[in-house]
This record gives sequence, structure tokens and C-alpha cells, in this order.
Amino acid sequence: MPKPITFKPGSKIKLADIDPRHVEGDWTKESAHERIKENTERSRDLAYRLYAENRRALLLVLQGMDTAGKDGTIRTVMTGINPQSFHIQSFKQPSPEELDHDFLWRIHKSVPRRGEIGIFNRSHYEDVLVVRVHNLVPEDEWKGRYERINEFERLLVEGRVTMVKCFLHVSKEEQRERLQARLDNPDKRWKFSSGDLAERKLWGKYQEAYEDALEKCNTEHAPWRIIPSDRKWYRNLIVSELVKDTLEAMDPQFPPSEPGLDGVVVE
Amino acid sequence: MPKPITFKPGSKIKLADIDPRHVEGDWTKESAHERIKENTERSRDLAYRLYAENRRALLLVLQGMDTAGKDGTIRTVMTGINPQSFHIQSFKQPSPEELDHDFLWRIHKSVPRRGEIGIFNRSHYEDVLVVRVHNLVPEDEWKGRYERINEFERLLVEGRVTMVKCFLHVSKEEQRERLQARLDNPDKRWKFSSGDLAERKLWGKYQEAYEDALEKCNTEHAPWRIIPSDRKWYRNLIVSELVKDTLEAMDPQFPPSEPGLDGVVVE
Repeated sequence: MPKPITFKPGSKIKLADIDPRHVEGDWTKESAHERIKENTERSRDLAYRLYAENRRALLLVLQGMDTAGKDGTIRTVMTGINPQSFHIQSFKQPSPEELDHDFLWRIHKSVPRRGEIGIFNRSHYEDVLVVRVHNLVPEDEWKGRYERINEFERLLVEGRVTMVKCFLHVSKEEQRERLQARLDNPDKRWKFSSGDLAERKLWGKYQEAYEDALEKCNTEHAPWRIIPSDRKWYRNLIVSELVKDTLEAMDPQFPPSEPGLDGVVVE
Repeated sequence: MPKPITFKPGSKIKLADIDPRHVEGDWTKESAHERIKENTERSRDLAYRLYAENRRALLLVLQGMDTAGKDGTIRTVMTGINPQSFHIQSFKQPSPEELDHDFLWRIHKSVPRRGEIGIFNRSHYEDVLVVRVHNLVPEDEWKGRYERINEFERLLVEGRVTMVKCFLHVSKEEQRERLQARLDNPDKRWKFSSGDLAERKLWGKYQEAYEDALEKCNTEHAPWRIIPSDRKWYRNLIVSELVKDTLEAMDPQFPPSEPGLDGVVVE
């Protein structure tokens, strides 16, 4: 089965050396599609057990450059799973109230409750990505955040939240094509802002910031996974596989029923 | 197309006179299933436009006796719609912090934001249902709540939230069968508590409380719909139809794109 790219905690990573078009084995769009359907059915059952068990949670964190496909991944991987068993949180520009607190304050409020699958569309990692690239806080301040993040994630893991952190890795050329497609499609053009082009000019700085975030926050308790994402179907396949594998490893169980119910007849 | 049962604001309703097994026309489980699939596809597109438009919201409120099928309705009607376009909120027993505020405080916090479909699995109506049946607050207090609810819902509607309130109407006999099925199915027994049987003994009081809530809060701005729910497939069909019809009537539009994008080439 295809796996994301992983690397040892403490080791270095060079994104330029990882091929965003990588495909393992002889997977095709069609076979991936079939497999995703199977994974969804399995994950649906496991998510129901997780909910019934009501002891632990799963948190899927999705990060990636603009157009990397965070929305598309969520749509494909979660469609078919009972929507009551998961909760999606998108982190956009922080509000004034959020900015009046530490950077993890708004994140902490959105952590999934027991029994739930939480999905973060962007996350606390923005605070060492866009914030760093645009100097929104002084270097002194963002430099300490990697360690704060590792400690925060340890708190979550010890609180029985299993973390699955995915970096959706696209190439600069693929981003160019996707942005152009948004411009050229009348139903998608509303999503486009000329700010996207300004961000694209900072590609190199973002890749550096991502490398640092991936390296410094690749812990035993919450490792990063790199998902080759130039091919949407392959990206979806890997994330869908990862969600299913994680739920299987958690192996959630139905809780015991109330004692003394044998033979009870409802009147 | 099959419709929910509606009644004029100010008029009386007798639940005993409404058949929970009612089916309009010659719908069958199979034809309903097909139709729900079509509705889902249409609602998915409309929900995307609603999100893009980012001006208005839809709020679906589901109420009903235990086993009426609130969870099943959400699963069937929303599965297939992009999970990022809606948000489900279940209201369970209020927390101590929630009880330290007025009864609408926790509800208000969960109202859908612009562009979103919100789904309330139970709602503020519990505060004139279970609260009334069990005398959790004095009669003086709950008596005023119908009017508070109508005013609150007017606030939402004027804030561009379209409200769709559904009462899932099941018979006492159907509830008996469903509770028994929970007891008899090892994978479902964890859901059963002997408290469910105690609640069932209060069937008559609950029906009265529902009749009052339906009559007193059946306003022009937020009317109630009664969904015959003894047949799960028919219940799902009606709610799915209602969501699609409501979105169609809202007719959300893509927002205009930024000016000056014609002919822009991404580099």
C-alpha cells in the first residue's frame, strides 16, 4: 500500500529533493479511486466505533502552499464518512480577539473532543509560516514557537489525541497551472486574488519556512508526513490510507452496555 | 414532489391526528433513494455557491422523540455534500457554564456563519420540552420562553439566516420497535440506557409539550415542518427535498471576481 514520505525526528529534509509527482507502485487514477472508496467505508465504521468508545480523538492537520489541495483532500477523504463523527476547522487570518492572545489560544479551543475526528485546514503552523515569511512578529518571537508547538502537541497526545500531520507537497509549476485554471474558469475566478501572485513570488521563502517547521516539529509523538501532491488522486489516496490505517491502529471498541439489560422487553 | 406537513401560524395542531406512516403519491424506498441522490448532488452545488457568496446562511433544526432519527437524517441527507460547507452542532445536557447563562446563550454561539449550512441536532426547543416535562425550571420561567424563542429566531432571520425547523414525527409503536432493536443488537446496545424507558413512560407529556412548541413557535419567519418519520426512507426523502428546495429558493450567486483579471498570466 502506498505510504507518505516520512523521516526520522532530528534529521534534515530538503523539499527540492522530494518529487511532488512521485507515485509508488503501479497505482492509477482508477485503482486509487476504488481503493479510496474501500478506505472510506472502513473509516466510516471505525469512526462510528471511535465515537461510541468516547475515549480518544484523532486530529488530522493539513498544511500546504496555496492550491496544494487542502480543501480537495478533505472533500474526497471525508465524503462518505458520517458527518457527525468529524469536525472541520479552517484557520484563516486571526481575529483581533485571537491576536490578543498567544498563538495557540484559538487552536486549543478547536481541538477535537473525545470520540471525534478533528480536521485542521491550516493550523498553528501558519504562525511559523506566513507569520515568519512576512515578518508579522519579530524573529525572536517566532523562533521560540517550534518548541511551544512541540510541547502543545505533546499535551494533546497525552490527552489521548492521535495526531496525523500532513504536508501536501506541490511543485511551483503545478501551482502555476492551478492558479491559471482558477483565473480561466468563470466559476472559480472569485477565489482568485492578485494577492495570490504576490505570495507566489515568495515561494522560496515559504519552502524554507516549511523545511524548518517540518524538521523542528517532527517529533516521535507527532511526526510529519509528506504527501506528494502534484497528482490529486495520489494525494487523496495517501491521505485516505493514512486516516484508515491510523483508525485501525487505534482499534476503537464499543463500550460495555449497561448491566442487566438481557431479556428486557420494551413496552 | 413530496412535502412536509405545514400549518398556518396561529392555528392548532393535534399530533395524534397526523399519521407518522403517511406517504404521499406512489413513492417507494427505491425511488426515494434515487431522488435523494439527485437532491444531494444539487444541494452540493448550491452549498458551494452559498459558501462562495458568503452573505447568507441556512439553519436546519431537527427535533423529535428519542429514536425519531435525527442522527440518521443528518447522515443520509448530508453525506455527499462537501463537509466543509456545513457544520453540525449537537445539543446535549447543558454544562454548568451553560446553565449559568440564559437558555439561548449556548445556542447563539453555534449559529452558522455566513456561507454555511448549520445543522442543530436538538436545539433551544429542548428548553421547552425536556425542561418542561421534568419541571427543571418553574412553569413561570418556561412559559415565557416561546416568545423569547420567536424573537431570537427573528433576530437570526433578519441576520440573513434562513431557518428550516423539522419535527420528526414517529409513533409510539415505532419507537418501541426501535428501542427493542437497540437492545437486541450487540453493536447498538451501548446506546441504550434504562433511562430511555423512563422517558418513554412520559410519552403523553412530551407530545403535549411538542404540540405547544409547534403551535407557539410556528411563525411566518421560522415556520415548523412536520415530517412523517415512521418510514426512515420517507423521512429522509422529505428532509433532503426541503434542504434542496430551500437552497434553490435562496439562489446563491458566485461573487464578482476582482476587477482587472482578464488576460492575466501566472508566471
